[in-house]
Amino acid sequence: MGVKEHKKHNYTLKIGVITVSSTRTKDTDESGKIIMEAIEKNGHKICGYDVVKDLKLDILRGLFHLLQNCDVVILNGGTGISSRDVTAETIKAILDKELVGFGEIFRLKSYEEIGTAAMMSRAIGGVCCEKLIFSIPGSKGAAKTGCDVIFSEINHMWYELNKEKK
Amino acid sequence: MGVKEHKKHNYTLKIGVITVSSTRTKDTDESGKIIMEAIEKNGHKICGYDVVKDLKLDILRGLFHLLQNCDVVILNGGTGISSRDVTAETIKAILDKELVGFGEIFRLKSYEEIGTAAMMSRAIGGVCCEKLIFSIPGSKGAAKTGCDVIFSEINHMWYELNKEKK
Amino acid sequence: MGVKEHKKHNYTLKIGVITVSSTRTKDTDESGKIIMEAIEKNGHKICGYDVVKDLKLDILRGLFHLLQNCDVVILNGGTGISSRDVTAETIKAILDKELVGFGEIFRLKSYEEIGTAAMMSRAIGGVCCEKLIFSIPGSKGAAKTGCDVIFSEINHMWYELNKEKK
Amino acid sequence: MGVKEHKKHNYTLKIGVITVSSTRTKDTDESGKIIMEAIEKNGHKICGYDVVKDLKLDILRGLFHLLQNCDVVILNGGTGISSRDVTAETIKAILDKELVGFGEIFRLKSYEEIGTAAMMSRAIGGVCCEKLIFSIPGSKGAAKTGCDVIFSEINHMWYELNKEKK
Amino acid sequence: MGVKEHKKHNYTLKIGVITVSSTRTKDTDESGKIIMEAIEKNGHKICGYDVVKDLKLDILRGLFHLLQNCDVVILNGGTGISSRDVTAETIKAILDKELVGFGEIFRLKSYEEIGTAAMMSRAIGGVCCEKLIFSIPGSKGAAKTGCDVIFSEINHMWYELNKEKK
Amino acid sequence: MGVKEHKKHNYTLKIGVITVSSTRTKDTDESGKIIMEAIEKNGHKICGYDVVKDLKLDILRGLFHLLQNCDVVILNGGTGISSRDVTAETIKAILDKELVGFGEIFRLKSYEEIGTAAMMSRAIGGVCCEKLIFSIPGSKGAAKTGCDVIFSEINHMWYELNKEKK
Repeated sequence: MGVKEHKKHNYTLKIGVITVSSTRTKDTDESGKIIMEAIEKNGHKICGYDVVKDLKLDILRGLFHLLQNCDVVILNGGTGISSRDVTAETIKAILDKELVGFGEIFRLKSYEEIGTAAMMSRAIGGVCCEKLIFSIPGSKGAAKTGCDVIFSEINHMWYELNKEKK
Repeated sequence: MGVKEHKKHNYTLKIGVITVSSTRTKDTDESGKIIMEAIEKNGHKICGYDVVKDLKLDILRGLFHLLQNCDVVILNGGTGISSRDVTAETIKAILDKELVGFGEIFRLKSYEEIGTAAMMSRAIGGVCCEKLIFSIPGSKGAAKTGCDVIFSEINHMWYELNKEKK
Repeated sequence: MGVKEHKKHNYTLKIGVITVSSTRTKDTDESGKIIMEAIEKNGHKICGYDVVKDLKLDILRGLFHLLQNCDVVILNGGTGISSRDVTAETIKAILDKELVGFGEIFRLKSYEEIGTAAMMSRAIGGVCCEKLIFSIPGSKGAAKTGCDVIFSEINHMWYELNKEKK
Repeated sequence: MGVKEHKKHNYTLKIGVITVSSTRTKDTDESGKIIMEAIEKNGHKICGYDVVKDLKLDILRGLFHLLQNCDVVILNGGTGISSRDVTAETIKAILDKELVGFGEIFRLKSYEEIGTAAMMSRAIGGVCCEKLIFSIPGSKGAAKTGCDVIFSEINHMWYELNKEKK
Repeated sequence: MGVKEHKKHNYTLKIGVITVSSTRTKDTDESGKIIMEAIEKNGHKICGYDVVKDLKLDILRGLFHLLQNCDVVILNGGTGISSRDVTAETIKAILDKELVGFGEIFRLKSYEEIGTAAMMSRAIGGVCCEKLIFSIPGSKGAAKTGCDVIFSEINHMWYELNKEKK
Repeated sequence: MGVKEHKKHNYTLKIGVITVSSTRTKDTDESGKIIMEAIEKNGHKICGYDVVKDLKLDILRGLFHLLQNCDVVILNGGTGISSRDVTAETIKAILDKELVGFGEIFRLKSYEEIGTAAMMSRAIGGVCCEKLIFSIPGSKGAAKTGCDVIFSEINHMWYELNKEKK
């Protein structure tokens, strides 16, 4: 099946959002808002939203709580290189299949927008427990770029992920 | 500090119990009961108890839910080699430090009790998010042997884990 | 030695082809045909061709059977994210050196052709047992793009791989 | 189900044997003979036998060739620490589930027989492609000890491995 | 904080240089010279320089010797795919956080300059012991491209790495 | 070759000692002294001795400094489970071949001496850069037990490690 044909698939996916931050609250979480707007604009449903501290325990508790009812979870924040940025390794450890192309294409798009600073992001995506997980940086620009990449392919990905079950 | 001296430490630890099984319920979960009795008999507190399906998602959701309030979580079940036995790899993926000696000493004790069948168990333990996690097989015998190993050293381990913070 | 100089190396390499698919046969395997035509067009020799089921056992049996007599093996198919797509992790596990740049440049080229859908492919390449292994998606477009990337550098890679032995 | 009950299971398993050695031939391979005698003595069937060089390519080609028709493959040789001993890492890379207890109990038994020299062996076992793989050292003593450990539990293991399919 | 704002940070970093090569000496090491000139031109300090053989032992001895006093170490050479090229795996093993984007953006820039040959480089970067490590190929072109990528973001990276400590 | 025959090999090995501790000095390092006495008593040579902080950087700098001239390095300390105990993971990351049996047999001997507390030690050994590395706990008892295990097999191990080069 060609790429064009895949684009035809339309799902209404249940998507959870987790903001990983030691400073943002639900009130001040602009990147979270950008992601939630993108979810609805693309015809999907917000099935949960949480702001958690940048700690492995809080991230995984939040993630596995949402995963129970969501098809997809998008995390933002904690993807940098400071000692407190643990989202990337935390997510990598629990992925069943890492979709290395997600991080790559995210950074490729970022490179077109902000140049070599794109390399600073440890965005990561993949499959965990037959669900899709995406982790992107916490800045507003990253939230927009991340949503562009995710929502242009999310229906295609969901189709691929589930095609063997049909 | 010598081993004898460590034995003197006495903590009242908050310990969660997760039974991983596709067949047991809270009513029929005898191994879970053995573990909870051992917790109380050794002067610690049961801070949570759950029976979850043998699925990575259910195991990790249960684990990270309990980890928030517990010092220690003991899982039983799902440590064998059938395709449904996923507890060992699920736990290994999220450990910050694997305590390889736990699995070894557990199997050494089992070997003394049941001989070479001891090798069938993929018991595993270690540190995750500054808490202790132990995963043992789901049989009643394993629950007893596991508790013998865990509770003979749990105060020592808790002391070691936290000594740098004092 | 500069890049231009490397291009001068000309080898007649023995290249095996493995199609990983649960639906294609040798008769209907168009991507396999594209790859074999590219092998001959670029002056190399087809040293084996097989269509195998998308199972780890079949993939590795086919691969190590061909590796004995081939310098290079190109696999196509099974690089997606469905539960049946196991080629990427199967190949990654047996590589001695992963050439991460192969997957990246493959997806970069794909991105130029099909946009963000490029991220869906878990193409992977590297060195195993002093041979070159490339795994690309099973679509005809991917076979063409993959061959473009592989054959533009295969002589250079073979030279690099073997230079210490001379 | 208790350990005793498991012992009741009786299978006639198809077991392949691979001797990994740069010096032994089928004629001089005494350890291979010990293993094959143990297979038959324990009521199972020899479904293949090969002597391969201590090279990753030869080991994996031999292994995946036999795996197609065998339920179990027992390798001997190449488990030491010299630069040519590559069996342990080669097997570890392709296991879906490592049964760490197999290596441990094998070394525990060896320790009872030869003392601390037991630590020299990197025996390893586990599950690959729903089959059982065991890798033991190439000495005659190790072949005997390895067969003692393997055949005392092989029916139990096969039952466990397949119980979810019934 | 936006990307522009980060660019304002100005540090005088202590940067060590290690050339990994079996043929170059300090006299003939042109790539090393290019890197050292870039360090000074960008306002940083050379805090050590060494040419080491392409052996894991020599690379790690050189690296950890320099790391003691340097903020950053840039290695060049040994990133290819021949059996003697061990820098990439040696560095990967000791990184606390791999900055996968560094290798990607390096290869993306190389691709713009030399096309698909860019995939041959296993450039790698990341954080080790709260310092920055970058490993790039040993050619003069790679040294220039690598320095372009590194020095356009080094102040930003240093800020990010240390921001939690302030 | 049988185990008995191996015992005949006699080497005078150059052995380095590294004590990993935030509290001991060369004056107060009793475990270091026990190890050095064992080296000499067993007919080997002390080729270096250092006390380093329990930091990855200090451990690896000390280790690779000594490795250049030593055949074997024995580290003691930092093998526990507190957040400052990083020796086990630091050493594991740089081993070319882990000799899992070393840790196992060390804990088995400890179990005979101190019971289940043996599981607390993350002793580890193996091969790195064609040298032998052993890491044992920092207590005096562990130093004695570790030396018993190491020196009963060190000649055998050195023979095995080097036999292919002869």
